[in-house]
Amino acid sequence: MEIIRDPKAMQEIAIDLFKRSRSVGFVPTMGALHDGHVSLVKASLHDNDETIVSIFVNPTQFGPDEDLDDYPGSIDEDTKRLKSLHLDYLFLPKKEDIYPQNYLTYVEVQGLTNRLCGLSRPTHFKGVTTVCSILFHLTLPTVAYFGQKDYQQTLVIEKLLKDLHFPITIKVMPIVRDKDGLALSSRNQYLSGNERISALRINQSLEKAEHLIHEGERNVYILKKAITEHLSKSKDIHIDYISICHPKTLIDLTQLTIGKVLIALSVYLGGTRLIDNRIVKLAN
Amino acid sequence: MEIIRDPKAMQEIAIDLFKRSRSVGFVPTMGALHDGHVSLVKASLHDNDETIVSIFVNPTQFGPDEDLDDYPGSIDEDTKRLKSLHLDYLFLPKKEDIYPQNYLTYVEVQGLTNRLCGLSRPTHFKGVTTVCSILFHLTLPTVAYFGQKDYQQTLVIEKLLKDLHFPITIKVMPIVRDKDGLALSSRNQYLSGNERISALRINQSLEKAEHLIHEGERNVYILKKAITEHLSKSKDIHIDYISICHPKTLIDLTQLTIGKVLIALSVYLGGTRLIDNRIVKLAN
Repeated sequence: MEIIRDPKAMQEIAIDLFKRSRSVGFVPTMGALHDGHVSLVKASLHDNDETIVSIFVNPTQFGPDEDLDDYPGSIDEDTKRLKSLHLDYLFLPKKEDIYPQNYLTYVEVQGLTNRLCGLSRPTHFKGVTTVCSILFHLTLPTVAYFGQKDYQQTLVIEKLLKDLHFPITIKVMPIVRDKDGLALSSRNQYLSGNERISALRINQSLEKAEHLIHEGERNVYILKKAITEHLSKSKDIHIDYISICHPKTLIDLTQLTIGKVLIALSVYLGGTRLIDNRIVKLAN
Repeated sequence: MEIIRDPKAMQEIAIDLFKRSRSVGFVPTMGALHDGHVSLVKASLHDNDETIVSIFVNPTQFGPDEDLDDYPGSIDEDTKRLKSLHLDYLFLPKKEDIYPQNYLTYVEVQGLTNRLCGLSRPTHFKGVTTVCSILFHLTLPTVAYFGQKDYQQTLVIEKLLKDLHFPITIKVMPIVRDKDGLALSSRNQYLSGNERISALRINQSLEKAEHLIHEGERNVYILKKAITEHLSKSKDIHIDYISICHPKTLIDLTQLTIGKVLIALSVYLGGTRLIDNRIVKLAN
């Protein structure tokens, strides 16, 4: 596994791989790697000639009151883990090489970013699309891998790639969960023992909603009420949003009809913000 | 000369050229080609293995009250002219292929775009950086060519390339002028006979300011006054801005000291907005 810190060196390698028609999978991460990240890396290793993983805690996707300074880091452990997977390239850029003094350029996907997580994190996706544009130019991948847990992010990146005609496709991998159902997240580390127990209600409430839909419930108000009631049984859960919406436009639905529906939610447990989601296919 | 209309076809050619390590010069234009454009194309043909010219009247860089609908077009003449230069590829995308329904993504360079032309055209440079990002992804050039007449644009593009780590360099070619000194612009076509005569004051006023600087004048107020007075002798000239500023930051100067200075101005002649500029090196 080659470790690259210098953006220009990364780009030179990427250009060489591109010219040699090697298919390159790219997995952008913020480190604190868990089995969700590992599933992306494994998929890329399986699908491509070469795989590049980046670890970069991107400051522009954190709001002023968020956990940038506390974001979990474990670079030695991450490196060891990626090495054991026989990763090809690990890209570890420095903050000042990505955002030097007098950095001025931002990439923004409108519309899609004003909903769901965009409401409580108004500058988040602009930071994501900006850093991904930079990282895509530095790694020139054939395919970029993202996890479905960050569902809205996958839509935003898909739109970024399409609108700006990046010659890159996106591959979205399923949510990886702990045995008890909690979606893996680097932020799960923040949870106290009790909060970890309460957090199980997140996936349970999604399961409940899915079950109700399968039983024929089509009224969004009733579905949201069921989710809210289940979450609210734990007093330490504070709901940020519950959205039942179109899985491509993220526009809220009031009544389910045909096709697929996205159920997505975000809650706070103490200072920790967790998200989860599920796509449910409606029986005809 | 190969004419390409489909973005995907253009990108496939560009990928092939990139993989074969052919150096590619790219000249983005809005058509209505004049000798200024031709100087860019000739420079690219001289410097590179392959040259791509695009003609695309980019709607997102026009403000709501600007001349998008009237912008001069002469696609047959342009095509003939480029063919006679032995251009390799002419890219003619359709508006709906660059900005399909539900287009949502914008690229913006902050700071630099709030000055000079950015004041009277607040959304202009965002349109330019957005379309250039798209065109760069479709043509994958080694070098992109821009004219110094659009001085601020060259700085903004240079910053875009640097900040987002596009693997592309920019080459800026000198302003091409008519024999009487008027900087070539597709918009010169809009001028009446009398306006065309008044327009000569633009370059003359820059010459006057340059002359004053060479004679030792360092007071920006006096220099701007001299420019204003010369322009104002034609009643049909309405000054948009006169800026005497740092040529890298575009920050206004009050007193000239050492190094280089940019003198840039924009005027309206009837409904026609014209710009011109000059870099003056200060004697030590």
